[in-house]
Amino acid sequence: MTPKPSPSGEFELIERYFAPLSRGFPGAYGLLDDAAVISPAPKNELVVKTDVIVGGIDFLPDDPADLVARKGLRVNLSDLAAKGAVPRAYLLDLILPNTVQEEWIAGFAAGLSQDQAEYGVHLIGGDMSSTSGPITIAVTAFGEAPIGRIIRRGGAQAGDTVFVTGTIGDAALGLSVLRAALPALDAASAAYLVDRYHLPRPRVALGPQLIGIATAGLDVSDGLVADLRHICSVSGLSAVTEARWVPLSPAACTAIAGDPQRLAIALTGGDDYEILFTAPPGAEARVAELSRSSGVPITPIGRMVVSSEADQSGVVVLDDLGQALGFASEGWTHFSDSP
Amino acid sequence: MTPKPSPSGEFELIERYFAPLSRGFPGAYGLLDDAAVISPAPKNELVVKTDVIVGGIDFLPDDPADLVARKGLRVNLSDLAAKGAVPRAYLLDLILPNTVQEEWIAGFAAGLSQDQAEYGVHLIGGDMSSTSGPITIAVTAFGEAPIGRIIRRGGAQAGDTVFVTGTIGDAALGLSVLRAALPALDAASAAYLVDRYHLPRPRVALGPQLIGIATAGLDVSDGLVADLRHICSVSGLSAVTEARWVPLSPAACTAIAGDPQRLAIALTGGDDYEILFTAPPGAEARVAELSRSSGVPITPIGRMVVSSEADQSGVVVLDDLGQALGFASEGWTHFSDSP
Repeated sequence: MTPKPSPSGEFELIERYFAPLSRGFPGAYGLLDDAAVISPAPKNELVVKTDVIVGGIDFLPDDPADLVARKGLRVNLSDLAAKGAVPRAYLLDLILPNTVQEEWIAGFAAGLSQDQAEYGVHLIGGDMSSTSGPITIAVTAFGEAPIGRIIRRGGAQAGDTVFVTGTIGDAALGLSVLRAALPALDAASAAYLVDRYHLPRPRVALGPQLIGIATAGLDVSDGLVADLRHICSVSGLSAVTEARWVPLSPAACTAIAGDPQRLAIALTGGDDYEILFTAPPGAEARVAELSRSSGVPITPIGRMVVSSEADQSGVVVLDDLGQALGFASEGWTHFSDSP
Repeated sequence: MTPKPSPSGEFELIERYFAPLSRGFPGAYGLLDDAAVISPAPKNELVVKTDVIVGGIDFLPDDPADLVARKGLRVNLSDLAAKGAVPRAYLLDLILPNTVQEEWIAGFAAGLSQDQAEYGVHLIGGDMSSTSGPITIAVTAFGEAPIGRIIRRGGAQAGDTVFVTGTIGDAALGLSVLRAALPALDAASAAYLVDRYHLPRPRVALGPQLIGIATAGLDVSDGLVADLRHICSVSGLSAVTEARWVPLSPAACTAIAGDPQRLAIALTGGDDYEILFTAPPGAEARVAELSRSSGVPITPIGRMVVSSEADQSGVVVLDDLGQALGFASEGWTHFSDSP
């Protein structure tokens, strides 16, 4: 009724750029209806997750449209993967300022198309709206997993080993590169880190294989320490880890060698989209075999322990001298607080 | 990494205001996990719909928070109802400027709570994010319906009768009242219309009973004429209706009596959230019985016809003299274009 994209404009954009993304999923009805239908396979249930990314907060205004699209989709697929779910479909809410050109939308849809092929998902519905604010993208992703088997935050047991996939800190250090905070870093390392910031690699193939191994798990989006605290909090436990056990990429090692305080950025910065999970002490061999068969590095980084009275649901990170790095909810007290 | 609500602030708000809204739905895990699980009952499938409302576009900046919440939820429930689905749950993305106070969030959650009780749905997940733009609310609603039976846009047949529930035009005229465009209208009529703008009444109980009767259907959100065109377009037909058959509330009649051009606002303004559907010629008696048993007025307003070559997927609205009101995609040519 008030300034929306004109109906014909919106419908034409949907027909041109988004309806093709629904092909192959009958319940999407070619985006020609008001709702979509979806059912899990027998003995499975649907796993649903929604996540929003906002321009100027979760991505930079100049980021290419296709990368914004892929990031918006992948942060949701990462959650599904960490829960052990196989991704199937997604809904897209695209809230755009009137200044956005059709070229941007074309690039955005091309990014989605590329990732749909990579992850085997389909767009099954959505909404377009205009805003006086920044580009805002809300995705709701649908996956499926055997009934009652998703990997929860709260299942960790005292004595469980804490594992993490891939490497930690690349995206946060990549953002530092984009903010010109790492001027002395070599170009190859800088490019690697920036790419990791722009494009999460959700562990979609690995995640479902963790069902039956992981006692608890989630994807690392808020930062390794904060996300490990989430597992601790819901599981009613604490965790002990050592900073030197946390897997770092060669590029992150180079960046941190230039200033050891940057380790704090790596451990707390977030946007890693790796899977952090716990498994019983006897599971090491199965985890190692899974790492080999999947080609995904999986590193043990610590242990779940009973919380002391004084330290409920805490995460203790030891430095190379075995001293605990003090951690407050606002950041590290031992390191620089500035990501 | 960049200005988000501080994690503890966000988590506390979720625990205080939103986690209670998930009680009674086990698959929501108390909003303590990263995803929710949901399954349809045997022989049913899930019906999913997402819709965004943006401050300054879909609601007014001063609208009370509880009404904004209820509108954000109800526009989605209305879509599910028109598809014949029984609503079960929803996800909420709440994207707020930093200026929003906790009091607003409390009111927003109270509005959701009230509607959850009214419609039997539960909050099962969501995301909170900050924005430099206006309040933006994305809801994804989940309903269920018998497999393969939802009411589509494309099922209308030539000869089918077109029906609409309730009354048309109240919300659009209510917005005119809020814009001070109807200064001569009596206070009671004005209040009625404004209430209809603020608070849609999705036909949740009626919708599922239309399965097996309706050949096509949708909810009236873009405006009666535009939405009837949607049915025509996907069904490959045209429709003929008469303006005098369109059901109007006494308040709308009073407003239109003051200026007949306001009928255009009623027929094209939108935000009605009534169900527009088609049914075979023999279904009149069943529709009338359903109207009696449900207490929802259901009015026949026209007929689906084969499109002429010259008039593909058109909607013809006749005036009291039997003359066609010319309709272009941008609005009425016969009436004033100004809602």
